[in-house]
Amino acid sequence: MVIELINTGSELMLGRVLNTHQQWLCRRLSDLGYVVARQVAVADAGRDIQTAVREALGRADLVLTTGGLGPTSDDLTRDLVAQLLGKQLHEDGAVLEHIKGFFSLRRRPMLERTRVQAQVPEGALVLPNPHGTAPGLALEVQPNPFRPGAAASWLVMLPGPPRELRPMFSDSVIPLLQRVLPAQTDFVCRTLRATGIGESSVEEHVGKQLLPLVAAGLDLGYCARPGQVDIRLAARGATAGTTVRAAEGIVRERLGAFIYAEDDEEQEAVIIRLLTGRKATLALAESCTGGGLAHRLTNVPGASAVLLAGLVTYSNDAKQKFLGVQSETLAQHGAVSEPVAREMAEGARRQTGADYALSITGIAGPSGGTPDKPVGTVFIGLAGPCGIVVERQLNPLDRETFKQVTCQQALELLRRKVLAA
Amino acid sequence: MVIELINTGSELMLGRVLNTHQQWLCRRLSDLGYVVARQVAVADAGRDIQTAVREALGRADLVLTTGGLGPTSDDLTRDLVAQLLGKQLHEDGAVLEHIKGFFSLRRRPMLERTRVQAQVPEGALVLPNPHGTAPGLALEVQPNPFRPGAAASWLVMLPGPPRELRPMFSDSVIPLLQRVLPAQTDFVCRTLRATGIGESSVEEHVGKQLLPLVAAGLDLGYCARPGQVDIRLAARGATAGTTVRAAEGIVRERLGAFIYAEDDEEQEAVIIRLLTGRKATLALAESCTGGGLAHRLTNVPGASAVLLAGLVTYSNDAKQKFLGVQSETLAQHGAVSEPVAREMAEGARRQTGADYALSITGIAGPSGGTPDKPVGTVFIGLAGPCGIVVERQLNPLDRETFKQVTCQQALELLRRKVLAA
Repeated sequence: MVIELINTGSELMLGRVLNTHQQWLCRRLSDLGYVVARQVAVADAGRDIQTAVREALGRADLVLTTGGLGPTSDDLTRDLVAQLLGKQLHEDGAVLEHIKGFFSLRRRPMLERTRVQAQVPEGALVLPNPHGTAPGLALEVQPNPFRPGAAASWLVMLPGPPRELRPMFSDSVIPLLQRVLPAQTDFVCRTLRATGIGESSVEEHVGKQLLPLVAAGLDLGYCARPGQVDIRLAARGATAGTTVRAAEGIVRERLGAFIYAEDDEEQEAVIIRLLTGRKATLALAESCTGGGLAHRLTNVPGASAVLLAGLVTYSNDAKQKFLGVQSETLAQHGAVSEPVAREMAEGARRQTGADYALSITGIAGPSGGTPDKPVGTVFIGLAGPCGIVVERQLNPLDRETFKQVTCQQALELLRRKVLAA
Repeated sequence: MVIELINTGSELMLGRVLNTHQQWLCRRLSDLGYVVARQVAVADAGRDIQTAVREALGRADLVLTTGGLGPTSDDLTRDLVAQLLGKQLHEDGAVLEHIKGFFSLRRRPMLERTRVQAQVPEGALVLPNPHGTAPGLALEVQPNPFRPGAAASWLVMLPGPPRELRPMFSDSVIPLLQRVLPAQTDFVCRTLRATGIGESSVEEHVGKQLLPLVAAGLDLGYCARPGQVDIRLAARGATAGTTVRAAEGIVRERLGAFIYAEDDEEQEAVIIRLLTGRKATLALAESCTGGGLAHRLTNVPGASAVLLAGLVTYSNDAKQKFLGVQSETLAQHGAVSEPVAREMAEGARRQTGADYALSITGIAGPSGGTPDKPVGTVFIGLAGPCGIVVERQLNPLDRETFKQVTCQQALELLRRKVLAA
């Protein structure tokens, strides 16, 4: 089955808005065993939208569009599609009543131009929109003039606002698809997330071992992101589950120590989960990451049960005052050094009474490097019930990526020590 | 001039990764007077990529691709494009040296498979990649077999990781475009960034006043984002500069106090610039924002000259220990209260000796609200040379958006007080 997605909106083409529909719809569809073959974005211009819809109908069994169903002059999709397919539009009484009710519930006057949203192409199914005024529209294109000889195609038009599109997709589009275009095969997808190892090394460790499974239909993908590599294992058909489980077994056997999470879980959520389960607490002493580590951990609901305090000790004074780092240590070794990372972690643990304390001190750049300690040098300390360790890393990256990768390394150090404790 | 963008990646089509390239590239191009007519995403599959490139070359003067230049088996773009255009690949000595240097700088072994990234199609320009191993590649397709009779098209292949793509685009692609495909008309675009005011109010304040300029060709856009509204003023042609300047004058006259920055400058960069210029220092005491404010400020190069320390005092103990908040104040008013915000700001200023100290205490949610202090309640304190103020805000949002909006409010409070001092 061929599925294509068309996102309309001039704001997309001017780069003023991030297209979140693409990921959201592709993810929901793939979880149900459907794969989107192509996604296209075009401006709110008649010719561009009609060309995109015509081309997609020439190839696909299902075409989804987003946007262009609203009341303003740049909302063109409904009219353009009706015109392209030679369908008359008529005003749908039930939709009009819904629109009137929507405004009266909110005690706002209904502007006359809003009424256009009750226009429905002949033969279209109306997909209710409880969160807005424009309904979705689903059309069985039969015969499909752009794909002669093929079976009917379906064209589903969805509104642009995410809080309208998402429930409509879940409540109306999925049941429709499962009825008229059931997924032909089972689909299983598993992502294993590795850190502390590069993309090439990952492939070197598992690529050859996975070859027989790839030959048998495993879809294998690597995605390198700052400080991590995602390994995607997917398969379709009756043996999909077996294939993916076998692949996961191979990856875990060869890379197990580097795998910190599965699917969508982030490292910070892993840490909060691990420490919560052990009723253990954490303190942070950050210099060069400047609160980035505290920020990540506190994005996780429930972080307050684990994180007692984070001390962003950017200046030497702050390192002494809040963490008890010795002035002699700073003078002798410099703020970016193994002994200072050690005293920072010890100090944070002592001052807060936390079970674990992570410290980070380094040179984020762009300036401040020396031959001994070039930009990107960082010391990560961890004080815990079993003593103190300090790791030295070199992350010569732009400032924001440096912070991101360094935080990932610190969390990984903590994850390994907690698991080993 | 017709420009098309092709994003490759199975992870995009499976909805595993958000496509941020589309917005970023479209934005940069539109700021330079170029408009992207169509964006397409396809999986890492030979036929899909070749079809997309062939179709785009059949229509466009410039085709940009992202992804598929890396070292693993699903990186196909380089080979597929060379094959499609009948170009031989050869190993480029300078690129190979760069790759070797990249690994030796990081003290990591260079794997043999990495070498494939030194393969360059004949006639291609190499776009250096200081942040990774795969260079970009630019090809003048002349004659263009897919667009007979037309002038040459350009095909520019960019690597997938954003931290490699973005500097390469700025440093290599823009100069190339300005040389070989200069934008045909003047284009001026100015964004004014407002905070502390809603999108509808912004339009109410300036919409009617800007109507004559819109009639004369001003492209006016509003973009509401968490905690801020961007007002986009753009125009093309010989009078573009005059039109945009006139519009900016009107917006500033009516909304000046709410405008905190222009174009892409972030509030945190404004603050670091203002405080650096005044040789003033800053300390932070964060509870519910959990280091988010420190993280934003330390993303700005030069933050270390301003920020002395950030104390993420998540627990009551930490508020007492590091900031000297009184246990009676906590017991009497609760951690989320005006008096605690006041003592946190005072404490942070006293303990660090900073000129200014910001404090934040609130209820990020999803749980923890009460009738008096519902989820989203937050107190923001600022202690400075002229005394202390505390603002109460209500931001009933999801956890991450709550942090983002609250940090924006805290920075805006500081910006106004520093400017008034």
